[in-house]
Formats: sequence, C-alpha cells, structure tokens
Amino acid sequence: MGHAPKFLAASMVCFGAALAFSGSALADGYDTYRGHFEPLPTLPPIPADNSLTPERVELGNMLFFEPRISSSGVISCATCHNPALGWSDRIPRAVGHEGQVGERNTPTVLNSGFFTAQFWDGRAATLEEQALGPIEADIEMAMSLEDAIERLKEFDVYPKKFAAAFPDDDDPINADNVAKALAGFQRTLNTPNSRFDRYLKGDLMALNEQEKQGMKSFVDSGCVACHNGPALTDSQFYRIQVPGSEDEGRFLVTGDEADRFAFKTPTLRNIAVTYPYMNNGATATLEEAVEIMGREMLGREYSSEEVDDLVAFLHTLTGEMPSFEVPALP
Amino acid sequence: MGHAPKFLAASMVCFGAALAFSGSALADGYDTYRGHFEPLPTLPPIPADNSLTPERVELGNMLFFEPRISSSGVISCATCHNPALGWSDRIPRAVGHEGQVGERNTPTVLNSGFFTAQFWDGRAATLEEQALGPIEADIEMAMSLEDAIERLKEFDVYPKKFAAAFPDDDDPINADNVAKALAGFQRTLNTPNSRFDRYLKGDLMALNEQEKQGMKSFVDSGCVACHNGPALTDSQFYRIQVPGSEDEGRFLVTGDEADRFAFKTPTLRNIAVTYPYMNNGATATLEEAVEIMGREMLGREYSSEEVDDLVAFLHTLTGEMPSFEVPALP
Repeated sequence: MGHAPKFLAASMVCFGAALAFSGSALADGYDTYRGHFEPLPTLPPIPADNSLTPERVELGNMLFFEPRISSSGVISCATCHNPALGWSDRIPRAVGHEGQVGERNTPTVLNSGFFTAQFWDGRAATLEEQALGPIEADIEMAMSLEDAIERLKEFDVYPKKFAAAFPDDDDPINADNVAKALAGFQRTLNTPNSRFDRYLKGDLMALNEQEKQGMKSFVDSGCVACHNGPALTDSQFYRIQVPGSEDEGRFLVTGDEADRFAFKTPTLRNIAVTYPYMNNGATATLEEAVEIMGREMLGREYSSEEVDDLVAFLHTLTGEMPSFEVPALP
Repeated sequence: MGHAPKFLAASMVCFGAALAFSGSALADGYDTYRGHFEPLPTLPPIPADNSLTPERVELGNMLFFEPRISSSGVISCATCHNPALGWSDRIPRAVGHEGQVGERNTPTVLNSGFFTAQFWDGRAATLEEQALGPIEADIEMAMSLEDAIERLKEFDVYPKKFAAAFPDDDDPINADNVAKALAGFQRTLNTPNSRFDRYLKGDLMALNEQEKQGMKSFVDSGCVACHNGPALTDSQFYRIQVPGSEDEGRFLVTGDEADRFAFKTPTLRNIAVTYPYMNNGATATLEEAVEIMGREMLGREYSSEEVDDLVAFLHTLTGEMPSFEVPALP
C-alpha cells in the first residue's frame, strides 16, 4: 500500500480520529510502515537467575543513588545517569573521578533492559555484567569492588537489605548481588506510552502528518534496518567515524579488524531528551545527528524536509518517565 | 522545679500518657526543661523582598538540581546537599570541582532558613547571599556567574521560568534572581514534627525517659546556651579547635583576632542523619561529638551515662524529611 498524497492524508487524519475508536488500524494509510515497529512493553525480559523482586528493586534503587561506593564518596550511578536529565548527563563526554573526562557519551539507562549488548562497545552482554564496570573504572567511580563491599558492610541497613533481597544466600553482600540489584532496578526504568506507542496501539491521532512522514522516511531510507525492536536498537555493531572521533570502539574489545571504529546502535527511545549524540557526544542537535547518520550510514543527503520530518518523528519517541524514589540512604 | 527521681518519673510517664490528652503539659516533671525549647515551624521567616511564590520555589528546585551551572557540567547544589543523605554528603569534607577536597564539612540545607548566619564562618547573612557562593567557588562548582547565566539563557525553558518567577523584572535571568529562587526553594526544606517537636507540643509520650534525661542534661550542662531557637542554633560564633583542625574560621572573614578559630553554632536539627560532625567533619559519631563539645566548650567530661542520654535526646531531633521533586530539566 502506497503513501497517500498529502492533501488526502490530511483529510484522512480527521476521518481516522473516528476510525481509531472503531478499531480500524488501516485508516491513515501508513499501516505497512507501522508494521515495522512494536510498542515498548512496560518491562523488558527478566533473566531466570535474577527475579525482579520488590526487595531487589528497592536495594538496587538505593545502590544506584549511593555515592559512598565511589572512592571520592560523592559519585553515584545517578551522577552520570541523572534522573533529572533523562537518566543521562547531557554533556558530551562523561565526567567522573577527580573531574576526569571519558572518551564517550553517557548512554541513558532508560529501557536498557531491552538491549542485548551494553556499553557503546558491547563489552557486557547483560545489565548484570554492565553494572559493576562504572564502579571500578578509574575515570568513573574509581572504587575497587572489595572496598565498595566493605563500605556497604559498615552500615547497619545494607546487610538487612541484602539479606531480604537475596534470602537464599548465606553471605549476601557481594559483588554479584550488587550487580543483580542494580540490574533489577534498571529493568524498572522504562518509558512506555510515548506518543509513538499510542499510535502503534491504534490511536492514529497520536502522530501528526509530519511525524508520520518522518516514520515513513525512517523506514524507506533504511534507519529501521538497525534501529528496530522495542527500544529501536538491534544491539549490533557498525563501523562509523563521527566528526571528531578517533575512538576505535568495539575493536578495543574484540581485537577483530572488522570491529575497528564499530559502535553499538544506540536506542532511539527518548532520543529528544538524551542529547547530545554519537559515541563522542559531539553532536548537539537531532537535526545534525540525522544528517550525519544519513551521510555516514546510509550514503545519502537528506533534504531539509526529510530532516525535519525525521526529527519530528524522533520527538514522538519520548515516553513517560519512570517513577522512582530518591532513597533515604543510611 | 526539680527533677523527679527516676523511679517516680518512670511511673509518671505512664500517668502522663493519659494526661497528655487531657491537655496538661506538666505531667512528666520536665516542664521547666521544655520551656527552653520551641517547636520547629513549618516555614522560616520569609524576607519582604523575596516572596515565597510557587513559581520561585519551582525555579529554585530546578536550579538546585541543575549541574550545567558548574564548569564540569556534573556538579549541582544537590551533589553535596544530597537529598538521599540528609541534604548533605556524609563525608568529612566537601568534594567539588575535579575532586578537590575543601576544608570544611558540608552543612545540611535542611532548616537553613531559620539561621541568621550562613556558612560555617557566617560570611553570608542570608540564604540569598549564600546561594551563589558554591557556584563560583573554585573548589566547588567553579563557574563564573556570568557563564552560569549565559548557560541558563541557552535553554528555552529557563527564560520562561524566570519570567514567571520574577514577573516585574524586564530582564529576569540574572544572578540576583538565581539567588532568590535558590533561597526560596531552600526555605521549603524544613523538617517539622520530629519526636521532640511532638513532645514540645504536648505529646509527653513522644520521648522516653532516657531522652528526657538527655534533654535535661542538655539544659543543665549548658548546651542550650548556644543551641537554642527553633533550629537549635543561635547562629553566633564561638572559638573552638576540634581535633585535627587548624582552620581559622571566622577570622578569615572579619580579620578580628577574637574570631580566630571561631565557627558558627551548627543546627542540631536532624543531627543523627547529618554525620560526620564538626567544621572539619573528622568526628564520626554523635558520642564523640558530645564528648568533644563537653570538653572544648563546656569544660567538663560527661559521664558515659550522660553521653548516652544526650545522644538519645539528639536522635529525637530528626524530623519529617521535606517532600520535593527531582525536576525534569531541559
């Protein structure tokens, strides 16, 4: 089914408002485009060996905001994955221990439970594998896991919370369980019910015509080949050198020449509120990001109308921010 | 009126439970002690030139959590005045820009609207005067006010929020208004309804006998001479050199020899959750803090029973933490 001319599509939008409530999903002429996408579930897959219990989520929430597991005592996960800033930091490259600036832009933790590879270079497959990395990284929290565990044991409340979260463990305060609790908490940080999700679920008025045109360009020009699945990432790696970057990316993990300059496809969920963009965070706006991706990954120059449509579409991917509590730490 | 013998006081506690509801405030034998204190109001005095409007509080809340007004882009007021940690940081001395460690322990902002002097050395009289200091301090946020204002102007939302908060100003985004908004927000961060407040208001069962004994020692041994008023501080300055400190304190502000090593009386509200203690944060526990204060300020060695009673009393000063929202920043 083709794309209706614009004047017709506009009139169908009005018509579609009624049809959306009568159950038709064909009414706006974009049904084949919608078929490339899926709504974001409220929860990602939960691994068999890390049940998402309330006790683990509560403990993970505490640990996520806990700065005393950094060597300075003031940096927590929430420093760079700041809930006030789309659970990221909105600066080009992460700033960590003693103000050191890393090589890469902080990825949001929102919807990260839907990824099958973690970090820009995929050096962790799961959130459990990912969780401990920033604690130990010299330029992030700069804390040995041994010291972090010892510090947690100094408080009265953490032994109780770990015992409640891991009732089958004799000695529950350990690095594996820190990772499990943090991963569990992060699996609750999802953003369903974006306008795009509402559109995919049948509310054909949730997107305007420009946004639907952007969705069409997203499919037709090939973005969807990598940005697909519920979080709009395939969690795969592709070679790209964005302006200003000499980062060798996944090559540093695998040593495989094919991976030199390869980076993981980032999620596009909430992309409007997780600027700046690219592995080095050097791209400030969605317009620039779309142009760069067209040029570098798809070998095309988008017209300014296409850019505007694509950016309008990307703005519909901002979902409902997850509820959470700033914990009262010991 | 004297202090009733302990066996009698214990029986009067039971008796007092009934009397508390019949309106008597004399029933537990500590009425003259209670008379030295006053409950914490829900709001501190509001200055005539900075009305506490919802728009100012909302803007101040945003600015309090805004890290982009630091030169690194990751340090906000909330980094050291962390709501997860009693609106302080629970480390000995503040860690700021590039991991620099300051000379002094971070004071909590809770109830700071009740102080008539700000900072350990009183170099600001009001919260408005205080608010900009940490933004500019080289070892804290390390940002010139000019740059901070410029950065705020880059966002679409801040000009609107400043205009709403300061509707009479032609050019509302300026340093004075940043200070006013931050001060306004901080005036909402109060902790009424501690057990001690409930006790002062007539619930004579809100404190147990040991805690009342601690209150009595607090008065009889002289703590209350400086720790008085709603926030249990007189906001005055006294000479003290605590273990490990060579900080000259208020002398660095006034140049007055009488102020060498003088520091402001800190609030005792929420003291149990705002450890560690003293101007250099070198004192980890309330027990040590009580012993040091007895020795240095009152010239006496408290017995271990007195220390326990005083510490028990201090624990009753933890109030209800203020509600607030982590803002969605632009």
